[in-house]
Amino acid sequence: MAITLGELAVRYGLELSGDPGLTIEGIAPLTTATPGTLAFCSNAKYRRLLGSTRATAVVLAREMLPDCPVAALISPHPYAAYARIAAGMHPHPAVVGGFAVGASIAPGASVAASAWVGPNAVIGAGAVIGERCFIGPNSVIEEGARLGDDCRLQANVTICHDVTVGARCVFKPGCVVGGDGFGFAPAPDGFVKVPHLGGARLGNDVEAGSNTTIDRGTIEDTVIDDGVKLDNLVQVGHNCRIGAHTMIAGCVGISGSTIIGRRCMIGGAVGIVGHLEIGDDVVVTGFSMVTHSLPGPGTYSSGMPAIQAIDWRRTVARLRRLDALERRLARLERGGDAAGQEADE
Amino acid sequence: MAITLGELAVRYGLELSGDPGLTIEGIAPLTTATPGTLAFCSNAKYRRLLGSTRATAVVLAREMLPDCPVAALISPHPYAAYARIAAGMHPHPAVVGGFAVGASIAPGASVAASAWVGPNAVIGAGAVIGERCFIGPNSVIEEGARLGDDCRLQANVTICHDVTVGARCVFKPGCVVGGDGFGFAPAPDGFVKVPHLGGARLGNDVEAGSNTTIDRGTIEDTVIDDGVKLDNLVQVGHNCRIGAHTMIAGCVGISGSTIIGRRCMIGGAVGIVGHLEIGDDVVVTGFSMVTHSLPGPGTYSSGMPAIQAIDWRRTVARLRRLDALERRLARLERGGDAAGQEADE
Amino acid sequence: MAITLGELAVRYGLELSGDPGLTIEGIAPLTTATPGTLAFCSNAKYRRLLGSTRATAVVLAREMLPDCPVAALISPHPYAAYARIAAGMHPHPAVVGGFAVGASIAPGASVAASAWVGPNAVIGAGAVIGERCFIGPNSVIEEGARLGDDCRLQANVTICHDVTVGARCVFKPGCVVGGDGFGFAPAPDGFVKVPHLGGARLGNDVEAGSNTTIDRGTIEDTVIDDGVKLDNLVQVGHNCRIGAHTMIAGCVGISGSTIIGRRCMIGGAVGIVGHLEIGDDVVVTGFSMVTHSLPGPGTYSSGMPAIQAIDWRRTVARLRRLDALERRLARLERGGDAAGQEADE
Repeated sequence: MAITLGELAVRYGLELSGDPGLTIEGIAPLTTATPGTLAFCSNAKYRRLLGSTRATAVVLAREMLPDCPVAALISPHPYAAYARIAAGMHPHPAVVGGFAVGASIAPGASVAASAWVGPNAVIGAGAVIGERCFIGPNSVIEEGARLGDDCRLQANVTICHDVTVGARCVFKPGCVVGGDGFGFAPAPDGFVKVPHLGGARLGNDVEAGSNTTIDRGTIEDTVIDDGVKLDNLVQVGHNCRIGAHTMIAGCVGISGSTIIGRRCMIGGAVGIVGHLEIGDDVVVTGFSMVTHSLPGPGTYSSGMPAIQAIDWRRTVARLRRLDALERRLARLERGGDAAGQEADE
Repeated sequence: MAITLGELAVRYGLELSGDPGLTIEGIAPLTTATPGTLAFCSNAKYRRLLGSTRATAVVLAREMLPDCPVAALISPHPYAAYARIAAGMHPHPAVVGGFAVGASIAPGASVAASAWVGPNAVIGAGAVIGERCFIGPNSVIEEGARLGDDCRLQANVTICHDVTVGARCVFKPGCVVGGDGFGFAPAPDGFVKVPHLGGARLGNDVEAGSNTTIDRGTIEDTVIDDGVKLDNLVQVGHNCRIGAHTMIAGCVGISGSTIIGRRCMIGGAVGIVGHLEIGDDVVVTGFSMVTHSLPGPGTYSSGMPAIQAIDWRRTVARLRRLDALERRLARLERGGDAAGQEADE
Repeated sequence: MAITLGELAVRYGLELSGDPGLTIEGIAPLTTATPGTLAFCSNAKYRRLLGSTRATAVVLAREMLPDCPVAALISPHPYAAYARIAAGMHPHPAVVGGFAVGASIAPGASVAASAWVGPNAVIGAGAVIGERCFIGPNSVIEEGARLGDDCRLQANVTICHDVTVGARCVFKPGCVVGGDGFGFAPAPDGFVKVPHLGGARLGNDVEAGSNTTIDRGTIEDTVIDDGVKLDNLVQVGHNCRIGAHTMIAGCVGISGSTIIGRRCMIGGAVGIVGHLEIGDDVVVTGFSMVTHSLPGPGTYSSGMPAIQAIDWRRTVARLRRLDALERRLARLERGGDAAGQEADE
């Protein structure tokens, strides 16, 4: 599919620097682009690569234009502009309605005629599948679950019983929505399993990454609002509520009953304990442990950057000696001297 | 299903404050409860919500009774009491024996007539499935694996070859029991894969969360004792042994050959290195890294709570300067003064 | 299968201490070995167990020989030697070509006659499956993916569209290769999904653990070179490149576009931020957070070992007071005294 720079500029509302008649036939990285391709540069780190690109044009922000030796499509949000152009040039094939051989649809399930149920996918009784949904191979939708229109379950996905999902949600392979949470009540004779009578309720345009897990609620629903994006291997505990357009990076664990606001950005491998409230527009940087409620907006951290192991071991040892350091300082403040050092130092 | 408070008090051995003839028809959260429902309050954090509840009755501890405006079922373990009542009112439907269309049962597998094998589940040769087991859709039980009675594999679960599982175990979607561990022996010409000749042996009443992984042993079995509960996305390395009734929260990683005692509580996202021994009744708080064997009982930590990012960056910088701080202090102790500060400060 | 010590010594190039005519019939751990079995001892931690072993022979390093009361096969790499012997005595059964009932092979897929496609496995259009591959039950290979010879997908594995995999790769249950990465471009009206036009390209002898996820690239491929081993629950972000023979332990998360060198050892639960370059032969110890590019060779750390919780809480409190400590020290250096202590101390 070929398109001119002029058409791209008009269609996506971009400013063009260069010949509008130049033709783009594909997308390529800056460094390996060949004539006929469109590249992008949105990260200052890669600005130095602009000069040698062989792309026909580059999507970029105005401040990078001086470094660009070829045509340019200029946007204040060049990565988003690139993403829209690339998606337009490489659309998902339209979903063709029907059932594959080996798909198992329980009596009483309602599957839109425009939806596709792939090989060996399983749909439980009373489940409702919206228009143009793609239920990928070996996925399981348990009884009573409801998917809105245009959802995409790639493969080996599990949507548990009575979960409700909005429109245009994406579930990558292996993700699980609505499994029972980790609920055990201590009793004198051991732990008693807490029944999970709640469900999980996802808004529109939610995306859940590969092997990510979202637990159902104990009494109320776990709620994931519109536009929330979860990366791979994320764990969302029972009864959590995550506000609209919050982004959660890979390997994050969120314990039960925590409420996270809107438009938050949770970095990779963050851990958040249960029963907290995180405000709107909170950023938590990677590898932090959140142990208290955090008002928003704000940025919070506790990740420790790696250094050379030998220096780190010394830092840990010094940290262990901070107590002694404080005592030595206090003694000096009281007028003591080195002779007064304690035996344990 | 309706039941009176009087019947609940008798059946579950609870003290009743209020009219024994009041009828309960369902379970609800404190805040959204309506007449006819039973709520519970076990966390002091939510005590303030008691006053406005519209529930017919609340399960609670005696010390919360003064704040409760409605009938109450009183227990020293209110969450456990609630869990038992809720499970009684919402029982799992009984498993109906049989095979779904698309289930694949290898010749030589032995499946109890009372067990259910769901759509597209696969049972390998020589596997043994106990009475009333529920083998959910698209689950795989490899050859020679043995499940005790009343086990529940929800969906997309994998139980690998020759794994043995006790009675009443629960496996949430996507969990994997008995995959080969991460065993590679260094040699001059690269790494040699270590064969995993051991298995994995689970006791009774074990629960493994969604997408949790438990590796098989290299020579001996990996052993998970009775009543161990693993949350989602937990990794248990090869040859580990986990003692009875230990609870392990989400995103925990346990390296190979580590032995964990009984009744331990391992918090979320904890990492435990290999070849350690953790005693009975050890608590490890969330986000800690365990690098040495820990005697029990005891509570251990190394998780760093997140603070405002600007303050955290300063803390990290100061930590890097601890060495200089110590040297400055030592100089003062020796009678030096500010003029003697070193160039690097 | 029985074999003499003499044959083992010759076949694996080991030095023998003891009677070459002794016969080995199986493998066993040092502590529970019985006559007729071979054990090994490669970890100094377990040397004390040698004296009481009842094994017929032990594979060990020369320096342990004095402690060994039975015959010994001596190697400078005893664990590797053991692994080779054990694999020889317990070979995987040869793959028998064919399709199981319920396997779904799309028209246009090319499956070698010597490959096995297990029950309910799904092969997409245009996929190519090499000689003697084992495609385990309920695994999914999407359209256009290509597997080299002798690959083993255990069960419930997902290989996404157009991924290419070399020879002899191993995929444990639940792992996902080539899912879309976490790519969203900020725009004034929300986030725009970035299309993932790249693929994932794996070399030979790669092993990916249970429920591990490897994302495909946005424009270029994610690349995993020959001999890379990934443990369970590892996340590899889009566009990453991992050099040959690098080992990555469980629960590691690697953000997008990071490049890792050859022969690196990444410890458990490490987090690596995106767009970094890690050199060859870098070791990152467990639980570290890597925030900057790291030259190789070298060893880097930031994991904090757990201590008793009460001591750890004090350490955290002192860390919060480091600022005040520095100011007190500076005051003393200027000739101040205790009377000058600030109010906030």
